[in-house]
This record gives sequence, structure tokens and C-alpha cells, in this order.
Amino acid sequence: MTELRVWAPRPGRVEAVVGDRRLAMTRDDRGWWSVDVPDLVPGADYGFSLDGGPPRPDPRAGHLPHGVHGPSRMVDHDAFVWTDDEWSGVDLSSAVLYELHIGTFSEAGTFDGAIGHLDHLVELGVTAVEVLPVAEFAGDRNWGYDGVGLYAPHHAYGGPDGFKRFVDACHVRGLGVVLDVVYNHFGPEGCYLGELGPYHTDFFSTPWGAAVNFDRVGSDEVRRFAVENAVHWLRDHHVDGLRLDAVPNIVDLSAVHVLEELAEATPGFLIGESDANDPRYFDLGLDATWNDDFHHALHVALTGERHGYYVDYEGLPDLAHVLTNGWLPRRHSPFRGRTHGREFTGSGHQLVAYAQNHDQVGNRARGDRLSPSHLRVAAALVLTSPFVPMLFMGEEWGASTPFPYFTSHGDLALGHAVTEGRRREFELGDGQVPDPQDPATYAQAKLDWSERHRPGHAELLEWYRSLLALRRATPELRDGRLDLVEVEVRGDVLTVRRGPVTVVADFGSLDVQVG
Amino acid sequence: MTELRVWAPRPGRVEAVVGDRRLAMTRDDRGWWSVDVPDLVPGADYGFSLDGGPPRPDPRAGHLPHGVHGPSRMVDHDAFVWTDDEWSGVDLSSAVLYELHIGTFSEAGTFDGAIGHLDHLVELGVTAVEVLPVAEFAGDRNWGYDGVGLYAPHHAYGGPDGFKRFVDACHVRGLGVVLDVVYNHFGPEGCYLGELGPYHTDFFSTPWGAAVNFDRVGSDEVRRFAVENAVHWLRDHHVDGLRLDAVPNIVDLSAVHVLEELAEATPGFLIGESDANDPRYFDLGLDATWNDDFHHALHVALTGERHGYYVDYEGLPDLAHVLTNGWLPRRHSPFRGRTHGREFTGSGHQLVAYAQNHDQVGNRARGDRLSPSHLRVAAALVLTSPFVPMLFMGEEWGASTPFPYFTSHGDLALGHAVTEGRRREFELGDGQVPDPQDPATYAQAKLDWSERHRPGHAELLEWYRSLLALRRATPELRDGRLDLVEVEVRGDVLTVRRGPVTVVADFGSLDVQVG
Repeated sequence: MTELRVWAPRPGRVEAVVGDRRLAMTRDDRGWWSVDVPDLVPGADYGFSLDGGPPRPDPRAGHLPHGVHGPSRMVDHDAFVWTDDEWSGVDLSSAVLYELHIGTFSEAGTFDGAIGHLDHLVELGVTAVEVLPVAEFAGDRNWGYDGVGLYAPHHAYGGPDGFKRFVDACHVRGLGVVLDVVYNHFGPEGCYLGELGPYHTDFFSTPWGAAVNFDRVGSDEVRRFAVENAVHWLRDHHVDGLRLDAVPNIVDLSAVHVLEELAEATPGFLIGESDANDPRYFDLGLDATWNDDFHHALHVALTGERHGYYVDYEGLPDLAHVLTNGWLPRRHSPFRGRTHGREFTGSGHQLVAYAQNHDQVGNRARGDRLSPSHLRVAAALVLTSPFVPMLFMGEEWGASTPFPYFTSHGDLALGHAVTEGRRREFELGDGQVPDPQDPATYAQAKLDWSERHRPGHAELLEWYRSLLALRRATPELRDGRLDLVEVEVRGDVLTVRRGPVTVVADFGSLDVQVG
Repeated sequence: MTELRVWAPRPGRVEAVVGDRRLAMTRDDRGWWSVDVPDLVPGADYGFSLDGGPPRPDPRAGHLPHGVHGPSRMVDHDAFVWTDDEWSGVDLSSAVLYELHIGTFSEAGTFDGAIGHLDHLVELGVTAVEVLPVAEFAGDRNWGYDGVGLYAPHHAYGGPDGFKRFVDACHVRGLGVVLDVVYNHFGPEGCYLGELGPYHTDFFSTPWGAAVNFDRVGSDEVRRFAVENAVHWLRDHHVDGLRLDAVPNIVDLSAVHVLEELAEATPGFLIGESDANDPRYFDLGLDATWNDDFHHALHVALTGERHGYYVDYEGLPDLAHVLTNGWLPRRHSPFRGRTHGREFTGSGHQLVAYAQNHDQVGNRARGDRLSPSHLRVAAALVLTSPFVPMLFMGEEWGASTPFPYFTSHGDLALGHAVTEGRRREFELGDGQVPDPQDPATYAQAKLDWSERHRPGHAELLEWYRSLLALRRATPELRDGRLDLVEVEVRGDVLTVRRGPVTVVADFGSLDVQVG
């Protein structure tokens, strides 16, 4: 016997739609509707009709095989045969992460396609992958931050079974899995949550639309929706930890922040994307946050770029400060037009450091990456840093493929708005910015795996491998104590000493010595 | 030589207007404009013209003798002759507060009028007054929460000299002064701050209009405006501490909350109005918060009312819990439609307890108070509680004068909207709710001091005096340790034991014994 349940305090009547049957559901006093459907088996499709309307997907659907607008499919999570019994989990203090996007990591753009490249990652020497969001979004091509079916690995990637095969394959190879999840907003297409209940609030706004209601009327069940989603990924998909998108936009002014509940409920670790330089997130239970200051200071030191948020960074002096203090001191931020941040007093293991990530590449007009000569210097600093290093897929061989912004909204007006918005953002003319909706924009983002053997790329890959091997072999490099990091800046030359290892990086000539 | 300065990043040109002169001001790179006006003396009036427009008041004007729309007057704070050298300050742990509204506390409705009743307070035995906001608001009649001239004691109350005389008179009598200040919104009339700079943000909303910009672009100077305002009251007006209005609506998502800066900058104590049951406010530096749970549980136990927020309260069982735990446990709040609060683990001295206050009286449709028989029971519990007790002006003799909501907006459309909004709020017809704009509504709120000698009132006053004397004489009553409070509920009878004192309050018969 299967019970279908959905929280939907808004409609006055809810029916389960199974095949061509409509089954009246019963409401409890908290707004949960339920009905027993004795013959509903795993693999069957269903939906919910609100006040007699067309069927809507289950917000907690484990599989949406026909996309965000279609029916939900019953998933029996116990049916999957896991082979990762010997997997012992991720230790953040010795981890090196590798951020990848399922759709462009392999030619097939699927979980199974990604499995085909895992041995490369093992040989490279990273310890865990960090996967861009896989939750069902509208269309087949998306970075993942437009998700609306938050419990359903995307059908185009291979659905829940595909994701489980991927996680299992990582674990049997000794690789951990961090999953990127988005709780600060819902995607702009295919989000029917507002018809069900008060998932959104207009008390706050986010750059991506209405904020999620974590602290207003009816927020208890919205909090549960997010907390149980986190638990779901760890329990049903064996994910080791989560990367929470844009935590400063997870606004909760109530006495118990939803992040705190989330951290208490999840046995895995939590990494927050945050540029707030706010240690409060550690108090709320995050194990680590991304370190944008490290990236931005490094990027400015490497490229001299000062547009946008780079205006706040001095390059080498700031990079030196970050390496020894975690992030920048509280100071005026011209980009933000206000004083920003608070002193960091924790361990380097609470900060994830990177020379590139999906945002720092993809939020450039053309999605262009650092050059191999830049990456040589950057990798030496990232992989000898006191932080948790993270690479962005393909950077290890200096991939020339860009990672531009891409979408495949079925809502054509929305698609057009995204295309135009992207052009306006960079104040560039027609043709200067890849059209996110154009399938060619997505196609060009796919990694060219043959490139890693070519001259100029193969050497860089070897450089990354040797740096990772050095980090593995040298406990002092994995030490998170920032007061043990010795740094010196002379002109364009940054010298970093960490135990027996000295890195001399000349940002003028882009020469770097590690010894 | 006097330098006039104003922060006004928005206009392209600012002139000081002094008499019929317009003096060009010079802008620095932070948006501050300044000009030397050699002949500007204390007592002279001035304003600022933005981009050639009509003169606007100085946001930091110490005196607005012609109201919120008129010119600012130069104040020489050093000229006042203080006589309170021997005043040693307020100790919150032994304080009993007395909340009063200057306009209705005395017949004259002024600071000097209030001085005439201070001896009554000394005889009563309270230790400090808590004054509803005095900052300049539109018109002559207002609770004070519509202030826009945040540095100027209201001209109708007697302006800055009047306020200083009042504070000085309190101090020489051994009474402390707590001032209510509003940093969560600005009043709806006469607020020209938005013409000057980004004082508001639409990222958040408050029930009273746009929120104050404490964490967005340009917020540094807005934070300073608030922090320096707090400092100003303590330094220039000798106020002992501040009561911060609606702190949950002081929204700051940045890494250093403005409340923290405020607490660091002010030598006095800070009491926050908060119904959030959130101990974080103590971490941010507040010394105490109001205890609405105590009030609401007591009110329900006394009156049986369950409308509005009272629906969350069970009466006696909740009151017993609050007396021994500070506030209610984290639990579902039907009124809020969500789970609310967090466990309190601090001292009773961090919570202000009251049977009435301006809000709890005034936010009733007619502003009606508890009856003397209710107050007999309530006073026994408030004044033997482990909290910081607070009385509302006139309750000590069971004043029959109501404290309805009143305003005197010069903007007639706004006035009409306030009148209509008030009627709608209580869903009562014409004449059922006093019109806030009607001078008669204000007039009826004035305390009738002759009443305190009348039968039924004089006895209550004596009861309050004796309870206050008992609290003074009994250290155990002033002990803030909640684990020492013994409480028992049997039917309608609440028994509270505090050291040698036992209070037996029968909520059925409204009988109370203290012995």
C-alpha cells in the first residue's frame, strides 16, 4: 500500500491523479493532504490536482522523467544496489575538491558519461567532486540554479538511478561527493510551489526573484521541505556533503535560523557559498564557506583586472593577507558602497579556495577561463594553501573550452528575457555575448577531453598532478593553522613558506617555483 | 566660527540657508557637504537647500522649533547648566521602571509639566522613568513613533532645554531616565532624509513603511546616523539608557549588526523591544528586552481574552513557565502561523516585565486599561517578579483615563488614512474607535491626577507603594536567578515563593495575598 502525501494549505480540495483516476485526498489540520493508493508501485506516475485544476508534480518527487511540468514518478530508494560499503567519507581537512557540471563534464552530459572520467580524477589526485545542482530544472540545459524539482536528479542527466550510479562509482574509487543545493530561491519556470503553500515571501527579495519563506507565516513546512531535502540527498543518494548556494540570501530573522536546523539534521558536512565574510555562518553550523577574497585577490594579482567586484582588491597585498588571515579585514568595499565583513579567526579548513569556479568563469561575458600560464601560478598557490583547495573541471589541463551561461527555458518569453538580460549585463552588442538559450552555447561548454594530451596542456596537467602529490605527501601543506603560514611580498613576487615547502610566485613574469 | 555639515550624497549641489543667505557648500568624497558660517550663533536658524530647492531641516538638528518642516536651530549643548553631578546612574538589576508619555503625563503636556509630578514617582518608589520617544514628529500630538527629527526633543514638549531640565530634575531626585528611540523606521510625515541619501531600503519592509538601510549601498553613514544619535542622547542630554523600539525590525544582514556597533558606542544600557524570544539580541549587546510573554500570559490569566496574539497563551500555566524560565519555550505560535522563539537561559534582569505598557493599553481599540481589581493582582506579580518591573503611567492608582492612539498629522490625507486604518484594524464602525486625529482623543488620554486620591484609587496606590517598598527591602525579590523562583499552579491559584516572600494570587476571585 502506498500513501500519497502533499503539503498544500492553499487549495480547498486536492486530488491525487494516478493514470486517468482522480482520488480525493484528506486534509489534516496542518495542511497535509493524504490518500492511500493500494496499487501505486514504484515506476508509476502521479500528480496532484488542486481545486480541480490540471495535475501538478509532487514537490518532493524523487523523479520527474518528463520534466518540471510533467507527472512525478514513484521511486523506491531501497531498490538500488549500492556497492560503496567500504566508503569511509570525506575529511574536509585533507580534501581537494573538483567542481564539475554534469551536462558539460562529459560528451554525453549524463551521470553515466561522468562516470567515464572518474579515473582521470583519481589519477589527478583530487579527493571529492563537487557537483553543480542536479535537481530538476526546466529544459535540458542549465547550470542548475533554476531547479524546482528539488528532490529529483534531472531526468536528462539520468534521473535518480543515474545519480546513484554516479555517487556509487565515485565512492568505490575513493572519491567523495559534494552536491550543490539551492535553498535561497526557486527556478523561474515550472515552479508550482506557490499554488500549494507559502513557499515564497515578499518580505525580502533576492536577485533571482522572491525569497524563500523561512520565517514568516506558514514557514514551518517550508523549513522542513529544505531540511528534509538535505537529508534526502545524504540518505537516499549517499552524498557526503552539501554546498549551499548563496547562503546570505537564505534569510531567516527568526530565533532559530533554518541553517542551524539544517546543520543539526544532516550527518554530512555543509559548505556555504558566501561572500559575506561573516563568521556567524560557522556558528550556525556550516563547516566551511567559499573564499571569494582568495579568488578575487589572486585574480587581480594575475590579470590586473579591476572591473566589477575586482575594484575592491589590491592584488598581492590582499592575497598575502588572505593567506595568513583567512579573508580580508573589515573594511570599506567600494563595490558594495559600504563597510564589509568581519575578522576571520578560524581554521583554513573552514574556507574553500579556488583559482576558478563555475561562477568566476561563467559570469564573465564569454565564460573564458584563465590561460595555462596563469593557471600554473594559480595552481601552485591554491594547492599549497592552508584552505580546502577546489579545482574547476578542465582547469587541470588548461581547458580552452569556455563555460558561458546557458539555459533552455521552454517558456520562450522567459528565455528571451534571459538572453537580453545577459546582453545588458555586460553592455555588449549582439553576438558579443553568447546567447544562453542557443544550444551552441551549451555545446561549446563541453570539455574537450582530447585536449589534455596536447602540447601546452599535458604539461599543465602534469604540474597539477605533481602539486596534488606534494600536498598529499606533506602534512604541513594540509595544516589549517593560518598563523603558521609565512608570506612575503616583494614587488611582483609572492613567497609562501609552509613547513618544508616554499612557493615563489612571480606575478610579473608568471614564473613559479615550488620547492 | 561655526561649520555646518550635512551628509547628502544624492543632490549635486547643496547650499546652507541662513536667514536670507544661501551659502554654497563643498562636498567631500563621502558625500558630506560643509561650509564655514562665521556669524552663525546658537539660537540662529538654518537649513539646507538641495539642488536649489526649498530649505530642508538638518537631519541632526538639535532643535526644530517650528516643527518637522521648518528650519533647524543651532544648539549649544555646553550652555546648559547641569546640577546632576552626584547622580550615579541606573542599576538595571535593582531598577523599577515607569513608562510615561510626556504629552499626557501632565496637564501641560511638557517636560516642565512632567517635572511637577516627579516627586510622586519618588514617593511611589520607582527608580527610573522610561520616556516614550520625544524626537520631533509632525504636529503636536503623537505617541512619538512617527519621529523624523531624531536629534531634536519635540518643540511642543519644550525642546532640548526642556528635556535637559527634565533629565536633570529626575537625576537630582534620584530617578534615572531611559529614553525610547526608534531606529527601525522614520515617521511618515516630514521625513526629508530620502532626498539627502539612501536612508531607506526597499530590500525589507516594516509594518510602518520602508525599512532603514543598515546594510545596503551607502549604509555606513546611515549606521553612523543612528549610532551617533544614541550617543547624542546619552552625552548631550544625560540620558542613562535607551529603549530601542521594535528591534526585530532593525534588519541588518551584514557581518556586524548595527545593534552591536550601537552597544559598543553607548556607555549606557540598551533595552530592546522584542517579541522574537531571540537570545541573539543579548549577544549583540542589548542589556535587556521587553518580556511580552509575561504580559500576554498574565493578561490572559486575568481577563480570559484570547483574541489577536493572546490566542497563543494558556494563561496560568504559561505565566508559571515564564516566571521560572524567562519566556516561553520554542513552540508553535498559532498567531504567527509558525514555530517561534528559542529557549531563554539568562537572568531575569535581562527581561522587563509589565502588566501594562503604552502598546498593550493603546493598541486596544479604545485604549482602555486594566481595572483596579485586575491591577491589584498584576502588581503583586510584576513587583515580586525576578524581572525588571515596569509600570505604565497612572496604573499605580488604576487611572481610568484611556491611552488611545493619537496623531496630529499636518498632512491631511495621511491623517485621514490613519483614522480609517485604525477603524479597519478593529473592524468597528464609526464612533466606536476614537479618531487618532481628533484633539479630543488626545485630551482624554491626559492623566487625571486628582483621581489618585479618590476611593478605590488611593488604596491601589498604597498597594503599589507597599509592594515597591517590599521589593526594596527584600534582596531575594530583586534576585534575577530564575532557578530560585518557586511556582505552583492549582486551579486558578498561582503561588510564587521568592525567599521569605510568598505571593498567592487567585485569578478566579482576583484575590491576592503577599506575605
